[in-house]
Amino acid sequence: MKLATLRNHHRDGQLVVVSRDLQRMRAVPECATLQAALDQWDAMAPVLQRVADELAAGQGPFEAFRPEACAAPLPRAYQWLDASAYLNHVELVRRARGADMPEELRREPLMYQGGSDDFLGAHDPIEAADEAFGIDLEAEVIVITGDVPIGCSAEAALGRVRLVGLANDVTLRHLVPPEIAKGFGFLQSKPATALSPVLATPDELGPHWRAGKLHLPLLSELNGERLGAPDAGVDMDFDFGRLIAHAARTRRLVAGTIVGSGTVSNRDPAAGVSCLAERRVREQLGGASALTPFLRSGDRVRIEMRDPDGHSLFGAITQTVRTGVAA
Amino acid sequence: MKLATLRNHHRDGQLVVVSRDLQRMRAVPECATLQAALDQWDAMAPVLQRVADELAAGQGPFEAFRPEACAAPLPRAYQWLDASAYLNHVELVRRARGADMPEELRREPLMYQGGSDDFLGAHDPIEAADEAFGIDLEAEVIVITGDVPIGCSAEAALGRVRLVGLANDVTLRHLVPPEIAKGFGFLQSKPATALSPVLATPDELGPHWRAGKLHLPLLSELNGERLGAPDAGVDMDFDFGRLIAHAARTRRLVAGTIVGSGTVSNRDPAAGVSCLAERRVREQLGGASALTPFLRSGDRVRIEMRDPDGHSLFGAITQTVRTGVAA
Repeated sequence: MKLATLRNHHRDGQLVVVSRDLQRMRAVPECATLQAALDQWDAMAPVLQRVADELAAGQGPFEAFRPEACAAPLPRAYQWLDASAYLNHVELVRRARGADMPEELRREPLMYQGGSDDFLGAHDPIEAADEAFGIDLEAEVIVITGDVPIGCSAEAALGRVRLVGLANDVTLRHLVPPEIAKGFGFLQSKPATALSPVLATPDELGPHWRAGKLHLPLLSELNGERLGAPDAGVDMDFDFGRLIAHAARTRRLVAGTIVGSGTVSNRDPAAGVSCLAERRVREQLGGASALTPFLRSGDRVRIEMRDPDGHSLFGAITQTVRTGVAA
Repeated sequence: MKLATLRNHHRDGQLVVVSRDLQRMRAVPECATLQAALDQWDAMAPVLQRVADELAAGQGPFEAFRPEACAAPLPRAYQWLDASAYLNHVELVRRARGADMPEELRREPLMYQGGSDDFLGAHDPIEAADEAFGIDLEAEVIVITGDVPIGCSAEAALGRVRLVGLANDVTLRHLVPPEIAKGFGFLQSKPATALSPVLATPDELGPHWRAGKLHLPLLSELNGERLGAPDAGVDMDFDFGRLIAHAARTRRLVAGTIVGSGTVSNRDPAAGVSCLAERRVREQLGGASALTPFLRSGDRVRIEMRDPDGHSLFGAITQTVRTGVAA
């Protein structure tokens, strides 16, 4: 089944079940919010699935689904853990600054604790005080987990994946180096992340979800021009089971934890990129005289994943950059 | 007023108003959880204050307050931002490993994004897989904010402080260096944090809360022996207004954000310490032949703050270490 959250006057919005083709939706009186569904998944999932089945069969009432009316599926979440699971991306960035790839990065995932209090809806603007911060998109695959016990194995962790979707993990590139140097992780360099309007259960993804990876191209566009379409199932060095188990090594994770893959990146340059930083690195390594600039006020970013028949799986993240905000 | 959360069958527990002397309490039908109160603070605070006034006047029904029945005031929160605002602590730790104190650490707070999905109650055990992780306490002051706009000034940020309390930010010391080296911040080295059973509004703290600092000694004990009682208002290099503004520089913070001071530390060695790492560093710099070990299974930690008359402000955090848990 597929789920989304409509904006209303509550901070957590209104949960709706969305038809597979993203055309129709229905609210579920028994379950007002996605967090409430995740809190009692074993009891609520069958209720939601029944509505999904009815929508698929054209039974019962429905309303037109409009992604513009959506908040993030979890407008605020209790946890956001973002990895860097595509080491090709890490390697390229390091090579561009003349640094080797430490062997331990191949053994254990890179992962940071992100801000989870304020996720943007798929159509919300990317707000930043200043273009000089080096505003960048990062197109990623995300999963939302149920409760995960401490010390969970990677295999068991994979069984805790409740929902799959996309994220634009916006990064202020020029604020990253000083934060990396401090060693305390990312804070000011990571403003609010946007989520796809719709999330899907793993079974909904059929053969494209296997071995803890989503095997489809992730499309990123800037002002209508393709940035890339790397396959999210290719060159992912740590699958979502490994990522969740890494996070749960010394503590349990509560239901509603969002785990991100990090910027999707393929070794094949023809696949293009999922962020401007990687494009700039490739340009630099290729000896380009000028690099693609980071995002500017008014730029439009679009991130989407389609199945082989061209159907959008999660709806599109379509954001416009707006600078001059506060600070 | 003072607030606490009782354990019940809900993940967020049951909000109660607690009398100033921590002896009596009353639930408030209009407001089931602390997060709900924070979400609509302007409407709910007067309702809660009225109950606090009645408890103080001995009017109306009440029950005995038992801190052992408490969950963390926010058993799960949307954000936990922990600073390192006592630079004396940072300086000592760096000196012990022969590193200078970079000038920029005096200009801008060190702060990391912590796991907020699972806060421990004040009487919950400290669970860890292995003593070899180097289990340590960190006694801190915390505040909980209302909504904070992006780019908020330090002065305005201080006005967004809703509640004040204590935390034990447990750290697995031997997992810290590899995580610092990666630059992505703390993840496995920071298991669940415990909160004091009770939180207080700033007005409740009278003259002890001023200029964004809490001016009272923070007592830490290990197995009944005093570790230290440094004054939380002394040698705090960045007040809570500065800390909140730092976090909000590039994004807004939602109501219920918890901000920590980091390990409370005074320059005066007679004040003692709020964590074992600092005691070990002082021992090392003093040429001791053996260092105090980190926490062992069965060790009992107690963290509390008392006013000059000896009254506990927030109740005590009293935790026992339990190792061999999973992983």
